[in-house]
Amino acid sequence: MNRSENDPLFVSFLAGSIGQWKIDRISTVIGEGLEAAERLRVIEGSQVPDTTNSGWLLLGSTSNTRYSTRAEVDEMKAKQASLGREETTRAALIPIRKSAAWWELAQDERRAIFEDHSRHISIGVEYVPAIARRLHHCRELRGPFDFLTWFEYAPQYADVFEKLVHRLRATKEWDYVDREVDIRLSRR
Amino acid sequence: MNRSENDPLFVSFLAGSIGQWKIDRISTVIGEGLEAAERLRVIEGSQVPDTTNSGWLLLGSTSNTRYSTRAEVDEMKAKQASLGREETTRAALIPIRKSAAWWELAQDERRAIFEDHSRHISIGVEYVPAIARRLHHCRELRGPFDFLTWFEYAPQYADVFEKLVHRLRATKEWDYVDREVDIRLSRR
Repeated sequence: MNRSENDPLFVSFLAGSIGQWKIDRISTVIGEGLEAAERLRVIEGSQVPDTTNSGWLLLGSTSNTRYSTRAEVDEMKAKQASLGREETTRAALIPIRKSAAWWELAQDERRAIFEDHSRHISIGVEYVPAIARRLHHCRELRGPFDFLTWFEYAPQYADVFEKLVHRLRATKEWDYVDREVDIRLSRR
Repeated sequence: MNRSENDPLFVSFLAGSIGQWKIDRISTVIGEGLEAAERLRVIEGSQVPDTTNSGWLLLGSTSNTRYSTRAEVDEMKAKQASLGREETTRAALIPIRKSAAWWELAQDERRAIFEDHSRHISIGVEYVPAIARRLHHCRELRGPFDFLTWFEYAPQYADVFEKLVHRLRATKEWDYVDREVDIRLSRR
């Protein structure tokens, strides 16, 4: 069977002493933090890496969109930037968990908070292609977080990225975030 | 941290020679089938069982609702029956996979097919509490299916259950199902 571009992609984020990304800092935004580490390996594919002598391991999977309408998907696709561009030497990995109150909401209630009130999709679209992004789901993977979002950008967009993060954290949606860690990375 | 009733519950379905459920038949509806086996173990919890000398193993996780509105959630909750009632000695496990074309749809397009055209939620509600049901997601668990639905009912509702299954298979939503196996079970 051929893989579709929309098939889930399994990704492992492994902290330790090796990896293509240097960890510049790990900040705890809310809830429990994550231990310090020197470097991060980002491994695509369903083989979970050997964690001997490593630090924390976070697993996630890309998936279908959960809230976006066709018009929103098309707008994002038209502007979207791919990961791994030569100039994007900065990255952020932001694992978040949402509260039980969020998950007890019905689909229409979550969509209303996510987009009608918080403009999560609209805000994100403003920042592409400068900020490339990939969302990984992990609520069903028995890990400590619900989502791992990976961002990449060139150094000249560092301030722009701060603005994006602060705008999202100021939304009504973020009232439902009960654990968030902000990991900043760079590569040569 | 306290578990919420909406926290994902991980469930393993293991075919083999032991288990609380006798497998009465396994029918292939579309796509590749599953091997015959005598019995099925249904194991709740995140420990994946030992599969030595066993048949196929399917893993899934309950999750938040993906399409239901608050009104639909409340209607289902008001009528919903729990699993494991003494009189529900018949069960069905129906693993399905949906096509790439389905997963390429945006959220609003999937909702339109799922409920506006196919009345998936409305049809399901008609049959509770006679037919109790639990949906397990597995699209992000790297298995061969996207969903594992488990149904339980008393023997006198066997014909009613057939009607439910046939109505769902006749919907527009089912045009997007490219693999489906229907496993019928009973217990004393």
